[in-house]
Amino acid sequence: MPRFLDLRTHDVRFPTSRTLDGSDAMNPDPDYSAAYVRLRTDRPDWPEGHGFVFTIGRGNDVQAAAIEALREHVVGRDAEEVLADLGAFWRELVHDSQLRWLGPEKGIMHMAIGAVVTALWDLRAKRAGKPLWRLLSGLTPEEIVDLADFRYLTDALTRDEALEILHRAEPGRAGREAKLLSDGYPAYTTTPGWLGYDDEKLARLCREAVDDGFGLIKLKVGADPADDVRRLRIAREAVGPDIRIAVDANQRWDVAEAIRRLDALRPFDLAWIEEPTSPDDVLGHAAIARAVAPLPVATGEHLANRVLAKQFLQARALSVLQLDATRVAGVNENLAILLLAAKFGVRVCPHAGGVGLCEAVQHLAMFDYVAVSGRVEDRMIEYVDHLHEHFVTPADVRAGRYFPPLAPGAGTELREESIVEYTYAHPAG
Amino acid sequence: MPRFLDLRTHDVRFPTSRTLDGSDAMNPDPDYSAAYVRLRTDRPDWPEGHGFVFTIGRGNDVQAAAIEALREHVVGRDAEEVLADLGAFWRELVHDSQLRWLGPEKGIMHMAIGAVVTALWDLRAKRAGKPLWRLLSGLTPEEIVDLADFRYLTDALTRDEALEILHRAEPGRAGREAKLLSDGYPAYTTTPGWLGYDDEKLARLCREAVDDGFGLIKLKVGADPADDVRRLRIAREAVGPDIRIAVDANQRWDVAEAIRRLDALRPFDLAWIEEPTSPDDVLGHAAIARAVAPLPVATGEHLANRVLAKQFLQARALSVLQLDATRVAGVNENLAILLLAAKFGVRVCPHAGGVGLCEAVQHLAMFDYVAVSGRVEDRMIEYVDHLHEHFVTPADVRAGRYFPPLAPGAGTELREESIVEYTYAHPAG
Repeated sequence: MPRFLDLRTHDVRFPTSRTLDGSDAMNPDPDYSAAYVRLRTDRPDWPEGHGFVFTIGRGNDVQAAAIEALREHVVGRDAEEVLADLGAFWRELVHDSQLRWLGPEKGIMHMAIGAVVTALWDLRAKRAGKPLWRLLSGLTPEEIVDLADFRYLTDALTRDEALEILHRAEPGRAGREAKLLSDGYPAYTTTPGWLGYDDEKLARLCREAVDDGFGLIKLKVGADPADDVRRLRIAREAVGPDIRIAVDANQRWDVAEAIRRLDALRPFDLAWIEEPTSPDDVLGHAAIARAVAPLPVATGEHLANRVLAKQFLQARALSVLQLDATRVAGVNENLAILLLAAKFGVRVCPHAGGVGLCEAVQHLAMFDYVAVSGRVEDRMIEYVDHLHEHFVTPADVRAGRYFPPLAPGAGTELREESIVEYTYAHPAG
Repeated sequence: MPRFLDLRTHDVRFPTSRTLDGSDAMNPDPDYSAAYVRLRTDRPDWPEGHGFVFTIGRGNDVQAAAIEALREHVVGRDAEEVLADLGAFWRELVHDSQLRWLGPEKGIMHMAIGAVVTALWDLRAKRAGKPLWRLLSGLTPEEIVDLADFRYLTDALTRDEALEILHRAEPGRAGREAKLLSDGYPAYTTTPGWLGYDDEKLARLCREAVDDGFGLIKLKVGADPADDVRRLRIAREAVGPDIRIAVDANQRWDVAEAIRRLDALRPFDLAWIEEPTSPDDVLGHAAIARAVAPLPVATGEHLANRVLAKQFLQARALSVLQLDATRVAGVNENLAILLLAAKFGVRVCPHAGGVGLCEAVQHLAMFDYVAVSGRVEDRMIEYVDHLHEHFVTPADVRAGRYFPPLAPGAGTELREESIVEYTYAHPAG
């Protein structure tokens, strides 16, 4: 019987603050980081499972410590048994009552569970010889709903309703998989839009985004109002009339302020406004959405769990759900969120960028297209051209589209050399 | 100039699971713990500041590691400057963008900030020679609002509205302080009601609660429905007709289930239902509150931050707000929550028990009575008779009332011997 021998963590940090990549109105100088975990069994012929939580620097060590706290749930366990029922294992971790107290179901401990769960999926997919999206897309509707936890969701989505959604999508799976392999999945880019870039760099990157085939670009806003208007003018001029422009305020505003600031941006025909205020503020987002309609409100990268996702959907507080691979408790919770979005008919445009978020979240979006919503026309995965070279299977984005990964696994494995080179050395203190 | 020399943490755990003290439908075997912090300056004549986060066991080390991550914000800083503007210091910690990513403003990192902020208040109160409640009650309305962060709150409460609430309460401060000193502040008890106690122990502890002068007791419910009814019958018989009984489901139910289960408890004329479902589910609580009215819905010990508190108030999703001393980012955020509750006219009945929660939260409730809401008639602080002996200034509860602490500080200091004796020794592994 194969047993888990080891759970090892690494505090990996890339010094992105040096170039202001990733700078926005709330995060002036992020150091893109990964609290990284690898799971090893006692079977030398088994691959390792890799997962991580994306953070932006300080505290990445605390995030890694939280992953270490899950060691006793993993090490020594029968690996085949765990992998065969990841729904049960997810529930065991999330419902560990002592650890749950530290959230509950949110923040550092919840994301730590996400990293371990994703590492288990990575291992299961590698063992199956399939990329994660294809592994998930090959499960029966019953197997898929068994992975999701419907606790706290049943007033919005029951197990039976989820099954119905999945059964409805079943006949078209093969056709959509073939289409995905030939056409890829649409991408949009945030590469041009970081707040720390000067106007010249902004214009140049906007032109490059068009040349690279992207149909939508995203700009950071929310600091100085005059800057927002000037940068939007520069971007519009650079991309021409046919490219869509979305904006992201990164939680900078209060409700009334958001409505006022967005009124000033009306002339720019924005694709959406992202994170106008606190990601916990369901009612605030709903008020903003009503006031700025038909401008779509987008959020998700900081939605702490499926209970918040549920409420945002119930309250019509978002119309673009930005699924994030590492904010919630991993693949299983994101399956539940995809099912919720399908129930409410809301489009999912995943958050990515950071460290490995593109690599990880594409599997979920592609699974959604093949087996859940069946839709791709109104959807896009975010793309930022940073740090992909550190991954064993970097995202394959060409002509503004993600082409499906074919290598076995969840896409979450960093190159050994990158782990070694960027393992954080704490300053002496 | 006095500087902070040191931030030391301790992983303190009491083995309460041995006796099932604190057992409920979600937490069968808690080990009540404190991730404890002490701040020391380079001035030998200054006292230390002490603070903590209450946890229930596993992960207490991760919580302590999160407190350690705040070291660079504290050590080396001018202590007088920091203590003189704790509003600014709170904002500095909460808005550290890299650390904020780990919440944002929720979970382990947010509670860690709470521990440090509370330790600073403990130090400031000791330096002032006053108990915290009296220090806060002596501040001007302008000084108090400067301590609160109104970011994300202004759609429900502006700085000016908060000032108006505080100015309105100002003339009665002295009278209420005198009344507090003579009469104390009402308490209720949860000591009898833990789910792990057998019927005989339940009945005995109910009778003792009445003898001790409590006017309300609280029982854990939410596991087996028949058990709930049987235990409520036993409790009612033991306490007689004049004592109120509240129940606490500790997040055990989904929305429809809560409504159905509470319907079966209608005959017992309950004082409130606490935590019927996920503490993140504003809309779910609102639906439950409408369905079970006039039974009041209570929650708070897991309300992650002031943004959730705001929404629960806006949506009329609770009518008893159970302020918690260590769930949010310390004294400052709890001031904001008290101001919100006063604005909405909702009564505050703080959550306590655990380790040191009674000692800590009484200061906030007493400050609220003297300087914010001016009300005590409809309020009570929870009391559980556990672990008080480990504190330097244990809560003084007599005849069902908390009598105001008079010793300088925030009440958050553990006895040195208790820290040493209960510092957790990690099992070798």
